Amino acid sequence: MVASSSLTEFLAAASLVDHHVHGAFTTELSRAEFEVALNEGSPDPVPAWMTQFDSQLGFAIRRWCAPLLDLPAHASAAEYWRRRTELGTAEVTARFLRAAGVSDWVLDTGYAAGTVLDASGMAAASGGHVHPVVRLESLAEGLAAEGVRDYVDEFASRLSGRFVAAKSILAYRCGFDLDLGRPTDSEVAEAARRWTGEAGDRPRLTDPVLIRHGLHAAAEAGLPLQIHTGFGDRDLDLHRSNPLLLLDFLRDPRVSRVPVLLLHCYPYHREAGYLAQAFPNVHFDVGLAVNHLGVRSAELIAESFELAPFAKQLYSSDAWGPPELHFLGATLWRRAIGLIFGRWVADGDWSPADATRVAGMLGSGNARRVYRLPTG
Amino acid sequence: MVASSSLTEFLAAASLVDHHVHGAFTTELSRAEFEVALNEGSPDPVPAWMTQFDSQLGFAIRRWCAPLLDLPAHASAAEYWRRRTELGTAEVTARFLRAAGVSDWVLDTGYAAGTVLDASGMAAASGGHVHPVVRLESLAEGLAAEGVRDYVDEFASRLSGRFVAAKSILAYRCGFDLDLGRPTDSEVAEAARRWTGEAGDRPRLTDPVLIRHGLHAAAEAGLPLQIHTGFGDRDLDLHRSNPLLLLDFLRDPRVSRVPVLLLHCYPYHREAGYLAQAFPNVHFDVGLAVNHLGVRSAELIAESFELAPFAKQLYSSDAWGPPELHFLGATLWRRAIGLIFGRWVADGDWSPADATRVAGMLGSGNARRVYRLPTG
Amino acid sequence: MVASSSLTEFLAAASLVDHHVHGAFTTELSRAEFEVALNEGSPDPVPAWMTQFDSQLGFAIRRWCAPLLDLPAHASAAEYWRRRTELGTAEVTARFLRAAGVSDWVLDTGYAAGTVLDASGMAAASGGHVHPVVRLESLAEGLAAEGVRDYVDEFASRLSGRFVAAKSILAYRCGFDLDLGRPTDSEVAEAARRWTGEAGDRPRLTDPVLIRHGLHAAAEAGLPLQIHTGFGDRDLDLHRSNPLLLLDFLRDPRVSRVPVLLLHCYPYHREAGYLAQAFPNVHFDVGLAVNHLGVRSAELIAESFELAPFAKQLYSSDAWGPPELHFLGATLWRRAIGLIFGRWVADGDWSPADATRVAGMLGSGNARRVYRLPTG
Repeated sequence: MVASSSLTEFLAAASLVDHHVHGAFTTELSRAEFEVALNEGSPDPVPAWMTQFDSQLGFAIRRWCAPLLDLPAHASAAEYWRRRTELGTAEVTARFLRAAGVSDWVLDTGYAAGTVLDASGMAAASGGHVHPVVRLESLAEGLAAEGVRDYVDEFASRLSGRFVAAKSILAYRCGFDLDLGRPTDSEVAEAARRWTGEAGDRPRLTDPVLIRHGLHAAAEAGLPLQIHTGFGDRDLDLHRSNPLLLLDFLRDPRVSRVPVLLLHCYPYHREAGYLAQAFPNVHFDVGLAVNHLGVRSAELIAESFELAPFAKQLYSSDAWGPPELHFLGATLWRRAIGLIFGRWVADGDWSPADATRVAGMLGSGNARRVYRLPTG
Repeated sequence: MVASSSLTEFLAAASLVDHHVHGAFTTELSRAEFEVALNEGSPDPVPAWMTQFDSQLGFAIRRWCAPLLDLPAHASAAEYWRRRTELGTAEVTARFLRAAGVSDWVLDTGYAAGTVLDASGMAAASGGHVHPVVRLESLAEGLAAEGVRDYVDEFASRLSGRFVAAKSILAYRCGFDLDLGRPTDSEVAEAARRWTGEAGDRPRLTDPVLIRHGLHAAAEAGLPLQIHTGFGDRDLDLHRSNPLLLLDFLRDPRVSRVPVLLLHCYPYHREAGYLAQAFPNVHFDVGLAVNHLGVRSAELIAESFELAPFAKQLYSSDAWGPPELHFLGATLWRRAIGLIFGRWVADGDWSPADATRVAGMLGSGNARRVYRLPTG
Repeated sequence: MVASSSLTEFLAAASLVDHHVHGAFTTELSRAEFEVALNEGSPDPVPAWMTQFDSQLGFAIRRWCAPLLDLPAHASAAEYWRRRTELGTAEVTARFLRAAGVSDWVLDTGYAAGTVLDASGMAAASGGHVHPVVRLESLAEGLAAEGVRDYVDEFASRLSGRFVAAKSILAYRCGFDLDLGRPTDSEVAEAARRWTGEAGDRPRLTDPVLIRHGLHAAAEAGLPLQIHTGFGDRDLDLHRSNPLLLLDFLRDPRVSRVPVLLLHCYPYHREAGYLAQAFPNVHFDVGLAVNHLGVRSAELIAESFELAPFAKQLYSSDAWGPPELHFLGATLWRRAIGLIFGRWVADGDWSPADATRVAGMLGSGNARRVYRLPTG
């Protein structure tokens, strides 16, 4: 009992590092827009015969987020929406971000900038520290839009200094089932020249040569490399985003020099855990799915504690848009760790001290080591 | 406690729609034939050194079906078989079909007609409503056997009117990892001419052109499209029946016009749940596996409540042959929902009212909407 | 309660057959070497910023193995290592092997002979019976090193008589996603001539023709065929070791003549269970992962009880090296069966007698039948 309650107290008090997250919305939303934002897989309007609130994520919002808006747990979707609108975006955002108990946000600002808070906005609204991540495909697209002449050098120079990590969304652009070796500089220069010439105002990077270049340039810059794997928008072919398809890339000695962070991973989290055992530099999380699975996130998180050493797992929400997601990810993670580790301690399988120590590694320690963050 | 008992009462009283099912056997079976019918994967005789009763399905039959034959739960296989034989097929069938608590059977009559009850036989034996589903490959084979001249028109005309849905078993005929785009009418006419010329008395459709035609013809007819995915007889390549391989097909705007129902899905039910989130028209079930997993079906059903919105999941038994399967599917489903939702309610994760409401959606409401059935 | 306690007593007293296992180390190890031996996936040194003890396997060793070294459960890694060193390899090995409660070891001696106990060494240290398994690729490499002239005949003659089974590690050498049909004798002779000419002192078999030959030669010799599937050293491509890719091989009537044992299987154990239902001769285990998952092994083992008939599942540790693994596999397996079957019995889903009977089949009966071992 002592064990279990000490773990619960530890979790309640622990400041987390959310090692992969995006900004919260800056704009007022309609309920229809909010519901679309609760669906990771589809950009379509929610059909009239259903509501996206009728999902594990929707139920978890009504269970855990409603009380922060002064409503009872399980308030109806209509009540929730009424109260949320009444409070307004700024107040709602501040409440959720501050209640998340996150001291450090490792922030990808490369998607839909303008509609969500930037680094300073997130710091101000949350009271936490923000550590920026460069999105490699967005960086490339910026260079193309500028029409830079010396793509290779310019890419390298923009990677330096300001970022704690680089992120790639090659899952959305070409999948993993192709050669991910390093292209030569001249191949890159040639591909960049071709692309820059054709790309127009809003270039979209899909050329595998330039995508591969981004990955290897980040590794050469010594940046921890975050890679989206597993589920996301239906634009991606989920089966071609299985992290096992990165095996040859991970075997590349040039890649083994930097930490690789496999993001999300669902439903390939067991495969990701295998890679985290098999490669000293590979880490993973089950963010994104934690929110979407709601009450089922405890089982998902339990499944993530299989092959991977405990030094190789991190917490993330992968929240984007509704600040409910920034708060809920942390809340569901604390709930899951309390349930899972609590039961192992109660059954004598783990010691109380180990449970608390591992919770600390997962919640912040591992991320502080990987991203070289100051100790919280 | 009130919550939990109200859910239990609701489940016990709820009439289900079994949204994908086949007929019960019309013939008396030997025990050896019965045991083969308990093995979905293999048509071979059960080896002499084992009994198929020693499986989760066999144990679940002894646990849940024995009492309906006036035996104690866990009666031995020998006792079970003796009593079943004594009662005879008609009595056994009536007992199981009526005890299933199914008001509506959405019935695929396209497989092994003659050895199992047809639509009117199922209605008579069960006291329920029967809604026929056309099996696209059987329809094509019928046209070939007839030697129709105008295959495309005739196919379309036979789809109209009488059916609540169309079903495809392309998993058994060509797998999913090929182009599933719509062939042109002239390609179809040419392929039909070639096949009809060669097919003989008992044509078997394996030509991908004609299989694709069937899928798209059903969509054009506005019929909900049921697709066998995941496990089945070892004739199919299970890894080529992963519903993720349907991504390009599902992205086709002509397909998005009709509900798509991914059937069975095991062990790819998490992938199916993803598709049900990512596409507004995609639904799924975990039928077939519910029976075969017996006591483990609760964990399977729990895993099915992850990414998919609750409006996108349906109940089915996929029973074929032994009427135990029609009853057991419904029984195991009620047991699982009671355990899973009951625990969520007891822990405060779901509200009692939500649990009952979602159980109603899953058990009948969603199917009534998809197939436009009259309200029960 | 009676049921549960009778199961617990049965499990505690049951002598197991470990149907796939390797020898225990003969040499004294450094802690660094020991930690590498706790990582199945990677041959690299453990990074300085972590310890492999911080894993489910490491925690399970501290929980279950420490008491056998006269330490309290959950003794620290440092304490564990100090005491283990103090006792010395011979004493530690004897304690763990004898405490495993294994009466029969089905032993693969084909890997790293010299650093681990051979058949007589295992028998002496454990007090159990040892039944040798021939590793097909090692047999081929031995023939190549000898430079035999008549490879096909010599291969066949060395298979006869002394072995209870043959094992293949084709997962490490060529993967499963290629034609695994039987090559002709002349193709084999030609490939053997070429390879023997080139191979040098320490030949390594990677030629698919000769690997396929080994598989079919074993089947022709009537030997049960053990096949490594699923996770292992990162040398293998995990996704190309999915046992579903063996479907065409398993459909080969020449293969269906002998028992096929799919080893390990994680994370494809559900797929393996499907194959064990679909083919009368296919069996499987979840060894290796049981140790690596520690406290989570109960959930893994529960997942293994889905599609496969109970006559088709076996116990193995797949231990290699640290004798902790020989003991821990058996300990975690007994724990899991007690938890899983115990709960099913307590809930009335299984009868007490069935639970005990199936535990006996899994723990020894099925293996005695497959390998024709004398009754224990």
